[in-house]
Amino acid sequence: MKVSILGASGYIGGELLRLILTHPEAELFYSGSNSQAGKYIHKVHPNLRGLTMSKMEKYNVSKAVEADVVFTALPHGQSMDIINELFLTGVKIIDLSADFRLRDHKIYNKYYREHKYPELLTKSVYGLPEIYRSKIKSSQLIANPGCNAMASILALMPIIHLVDTKHIISDVKVGSSAAGVLPNLSTHHPERTNVVRPYNPVGHRHTGEIEQELSLKAGKKIIVGMTPHAVDLVRGILCTAYTYPISELDDKDIWKSIRDTYHNEPFIRIVKEKKGLYNLPNPKIVIGSNFCDVGFENDIEKGRLIMFSAIDNLIKGGSGNAVQNMNIMFGIDEKAGLLSPSLHP
Amino acid sequence: MKVSILGASGYIGGELLRLILTHPEAELFYSGSNSQAGKYIHKVHPNLRGLTMSKMEKYNVSKAVEADVVFTALPHGQSMDIINELFLTGVKIIDLSADFRLRDHKIYNKYYREHKYPELLTKSVYGLPEIYRSKIKSSQLIANPGCNAMASILALMPIIHLVDTKHIISDVKVGSSAAGVLPNLSTHHPERTNVVRPYNPVGHRHTGEIEQELSLKAGKKIIVGMTPHAVDLVRGILCTAYTYPISELDDKDIWKSIRDTYHNEPFIRIVKEKKGLYNLPNPKIVIGSNFCDVGFENDIEKGRLIMFSAIDNLIKGGSGNAVQNMNIMFGIDEKAGLLSPSLHP
Amino acid sequence: MKVSILGASGYIGGELLRLILTHPEAELFYSGSNSQAGKYIHKVHPNLRGLTMSKMEKYNVSKAVEADVVFTALPHGQSMDIINELFLTGVKIIDLSADFRLRDHKIYNKYYREHKYPELLTKSVYGLPEIYRSKIKSSQLIANPGCNAMASILALMPIIHLVDTKHIISDVKVGSSAAGVLPNLSTHHPERTNVVRPYNPVGHRHTGEIEQELSLKAGKKIIVGMTPHAVDLVRGILCTAYTYPISELDDKDIWKSIRDTYHNEPFIRIVKEKKGLYNLPNPKIVIGSNFCDVGFENDIEKGRLIMFSAIDNLIKGGSGNAVQNMNIMFGIDEKAGLLSPSLHP
Amino acid sequence: MKVSILGASGYIGGELLRLILTHPEAELFYSGSNSQAGKYIHKVHPNLRGLTMSKMEKYNVSKAVEADVVFTALPHGQSMDIINELFLTGVKIIDLSADFRLRDHKIYNKYYREHKYPELLTKSVYGLPEIYRSKIKSSQLIANPGCNAMASILALMPIIHLVDTKHIISDVKVGSSAAGVLPNLSTHHPERTNVVRPYNPVGHRHTGEIEQELSLKAGKKIIVGMTPHAVDLVRGILCTAYTYPISELDDKDIWKSIRDTYHNEPFIRIVKEKKGLYNLPNPKIVIGSNFCDVGFENDIEKGRLIMFSAIDNLIKGGSGNAVQNMNIMFGIDEKAGLLSPSLHP
Repeated sequence: MKVSILGASGYIGGELLRLILTHPEAELFYSGSNSQAGKYIHKVHPNLRGLTMSKMEKYNVSKAVEADVVFTALPHGQSMDIINELFLTGVKIIDLSADFRLRDHKIYNKYYREHKYPELLTKSVYGLPEIYRSKIKSSQLIANPGCNAMASILALMPIIHLVDTKHIISDVKVGSSAAGVLPNLSTHHPERTNVVRPYNPVGHRHTGEIEQELSLKAGKKIIVGMTPHAVDLVRGILCTAYTYPISELDDKDIWKSIRDTYHNEPFIRIVKEKKGLYNLPNPKIVIGSNFCDVGFENDIEKGRLIMFSAIDNLIKGGSGNAVQNMNIMFGIDEKAGLLSPSLHP
Repeated sequence: MKVSILGASGYIGGELLRLILTHPEAELFYSGSNSQAGKYIHKVHPNLRGLTMSKMEKYNVSKAVEADVVFTALPHGQSMDIINELFLTGVKIIDLSADFRLRDHKIYNKYYREHKYPELLTKSVYGLPEIYRSKIKSSQLIANPGCNAMASILALMPIIHLVDTKHIISDVKVGSSAAGVLPNLSTHHPERTNVVRPYNPVGHRHTGEIEQELSLKAGKKIIVGMTPHAVDLVRGILCTAYTYPISELDDKDIWKSIRDTYHNEPFIRIVKEKKGLYNLPNPKIVIGSNFCDVGFENDIEKGRLIMFSAIDNLIKGGSGNAVQNMNIMFGIDEKAGLLSPSLHP
Repeated sequence: MKVSILGASGYIGGELLRLILTHPEAELFYSGSNSQAGKYIHKVHPNLRGLTMSKMEKYNVSKAVEADVVFTALPHGQSMDIINELFLTGVKIIDLSADFRLRDHKIYNKYYREHKYPELLTKSVYGLPEIYRSKIKSSQLIANPGCNAMASILALMPIIHLVDTKHIISDVKVGSSAAGVLPNLSTHHPERTNVVRPYNPVGHRHTGEIEQELSLKAGKKIIVGMTPHAVDLVRGILCTAYTYPISELDDKDIWKSIRDTYHNEPFIRIVKEKKGLYNLPNPKIVIGSNFCDVGFENDIEKGRLIMFSAIDNLIKGGSGNAVQNMNIMFGIDEKAGLLSPSLHP
Repeated sequence: MKVSILGASGYIGGELLRLILTHPEAELFYSGSNSQAGKYIHKVHPNLRGLTMSKMEKYNVSKAVEADVVFTALPHGQSMDIINELFLTGVKIIDLSADFRLRDHKIYNKYYREHKYPELLTKSVYGLPEIYRSKIKSSQLIANPGCNAMASILALMPIIHLVDTKHIISDVKVGSSAAGVLPNLSTHHPERTNVVRPYNPVGHRHTGEIEQELSLKAGKKIIVGMTPHAVDLVRGILCTAYTYPISELDDKDIWKSIRDTYHNEPFIRIVKEKKGLYNLPNPKIVIGSNFCDVGFENDIEKGRLIMFSAIDNLIKGGSGNAVQNMNIMFGIDEKAGLLSPSLHP
């Protein structure tokens, strides 16, 4: 299929380009970036040198919609106007902003700003294949999850019905690429190196998505306190999710819940071994891939169940998951173009 | 005063050497290391080149005790025999192992092994100046806290009486120097770089110290689930401690508790600002110093109170705190030799 | 074709496994490792979890040779005995050790040890496709270049006939994975982080290969002083090669020489732009790929011509180049299985 | 003595503040920064929290000159006007910009811009204590060397009379703090991490200083090709300087030259051992200190003599050397306030 990308010069846009350029069944049709229009793609994303001689172009919705699918990787808020326009043409849309993730526009308003197209919210599907695969297949508009939300939801989803709903902590450690392509003091290398820096520790925007999806899954109101920390990585997220089981669980129960939830999922790997350096999820081992590794530790003495997940924030937490959604929407092999594993070491 | 160090070739030993060699009132008398005996100190700790021409010597208790104070930085278990021997001579001892930290030998047995000298446990003081300053002054044997325990206790101590005792999480992020000087696969640079790796996520040994001290402080049984993560730092710890207040607190209450607890403490800095890159504790800003930065976020919506602390695991989490204890024991300025701040950037 | 790997548990072996498991025309037949025999591949190389359920097996030459090609990634010295044995069976061999790279056994003896099979040296081809593509096609035994040699040769080859043969410096900066999979003090994370550490600055073993190939290319004796430095990377090499042109060159001459040399080379990219952050080769942009980026700066004022090259030491400097050789030997598309670009950022 | 700093909010300014605040005989009198005026010093340099409650102030030359010495750490070009004004008041000045380093204003014009006060160039002393200690003592205006120049000169100075003057290469590897405090794309953490990036590889501005000082030392025209590379460090420089001795040297000759040059120098350490991880200079072991480590390898086979030096670019390459100059100017112990060693690990 032919693919358009709007917002191709950011990090998510660059990863979409990489995945589309190496995808066996997709073809890059249009690569839109206002800030870098006219430049060769490989001048903006130097890793792609040798893969394409295409250029970035100015935003042009009427050209973009000649493709089979349009990915939008634009800043929150800026996305909704363009998507409203795209939606009317009937083209399939996979949006990587936050604009269509929240079903309740009041929650959107709380975390972001006044939503201009609340009726469109009801038409979008939250782009998490592990929950909504069949809805994604038939939807015109997919709202790809936020990276911290992706990690938190995939960690907690399998056991959410087993735990105390009021004492759930998601402690997230995340790399610098999550801050995007624009430099500022917080990403200045001398300041960003050697840090463990909590940011937005209270009220982070992704909390809305996490609570929405886990509450739907559990069938009751779930409260999650999610606190991200900038760590000295470029890519990668580890989510350590602390929960308190309602009643004591043994490891078999937990294994069963996880297997029931992720049975046959092509990009979820359960990582839980007795020993070894990589016996639990670790972002190092998913960077560059679309995998989400999920594991757990059952702390019976303290009454805790700790869930872990690891993703590449730009891939399973962004462009890779978006391509997975595209594969589903077009009925091709869900794994197409997404098979590259991480590197070791 | 004259200082002996047993276990001078490890990282804690090296930092003790650095602090003693630059201390205005201390003098290095004896530097013991069986594995490096006969070598110049600066061949083992190359940063000390130019500061001393002394050598490492074989363990020699009768020589060591000619000093005014003996620091022992030996592996857990190995420490207790030597300290039993040292104790009989009446020399002052500051032990950096875990052997004399736990008041209840059953707890020691649980986390470590059978304790050979349980009666000595009753004679040691837990070397946390922020609690035990006056006891430290008059004690012969000081048990310097573990690094993860130091960070967790200092984060939680000020508010421990205000929170639900059963839902306390200490999520710790720690650098590689905590693994000590001996290389193994878990510290092999290609494997240790770019990781966020949970280790001993359940039942970590320092939990015993944390619960002991916080329970004494609170006057009731405190349960803490402490989970450390290896992150890509050489030095530094950030502790993110999640608690649930018994009743809603406002920021003033929390400030008051922290100020009451740490009023006049020379090495605790309260870091809690509305904005700025360093508005909360961050190990980057304490590395190389004896400071512990403490801060908080009050998450009223989720019913959480998040406490943060940052230390250099080898200094406030090891040798620096030990020198602080020495200063107290000898009645000199508690800050002597410990004033170097961290570097920026 | 069916592929055997001997030495599958090292870093080069792991990258061979990754490339073969994702190769469109190759099939993993046998994965040999004495130290890890019996373990699942993904327990040794955790990034491969989900790609295979095969196990490592004990060395078994008679099984290995049932494949179409055997890769040997064994320590220098250990390789030659096994290869002598393999060679007699007629199987195609791609060796990643140093044992068959040097045409003159006296040079081998100088840098390594007494060579046991000097006659085999005459039968091997130096596995540099950019020089020996046609010989590789018809050879039974390929000696894959060393990583520092690969970077130095590819940087210098295009202009070697234009420069003073006695004043050539190759200053190499290299990541920790080059040290291999076994931990030691030099790779201990606390010691290996934040370093720029010259190692074997004089007489490094790869110098033999570099001088051999450049002398053959130039048709005269070339002397190269190669000095590697450990830098704080896991993967990647930047070679900065300093030369002094015999007579003043302008940029066009240099461009012409480079283009003449690398015209149509599928894995060489010329990177030389007036501006931009990635205007010259940088290992960051080749890590994970088989590309070698080559660029230059013409320092007319100082009479210098500086050549740059960047590779991933484990891919173009190891397993990727070996697979490229395999593709050539079997007459399939040289780029098969090697198209993954690096990541950005 | 009382100290004023103009340009206190940059990285060099911050290090000056740290060194002055912990100096036994200096007192911070005035801390000038237009961009951060009105802020507490510790809001700008968070490591200094707890050391001072002073604030940054707007530039005020008449206030600044009430001190005994004024450090100027301003951008090149901006410095010269203020220094011209300061100079007339008779106050002692230590300038950390490039404005007064070059004795020949034509060289200044070549690398920078038209110099407005060429006559002042004749009154300044190049602030390298290892050469100009006695001149520094009696001068009013000191031009502190550039960081790459400091490393290159100290590496090459001892042997400059022994080598071919036309084939000298200084390959420099440098951390990100050298880029200063203002963020831009080149210092954006996702782009700056995992790089080895040559920058200004030809015609770098510090070349002027290097050639000036080495030519004066050698008594003949010296040509140096200096090429810096950004590596993944925050602080630190390793200079690898490649030279070709005029006639074969043995190690004793080289040792003698180095000892003759650096005999009794308080901040030069000769690091050259047969074995060990730190047998040659390595920035890791000088970071945070004012030391410059110097070592060499004598490559007789290739006719090369390789000189190494390592410094902290902000200390011996900036503020520490400036304080050393201050100590000399005021006749106090040259080492005062500069004794902190680096950390290990």
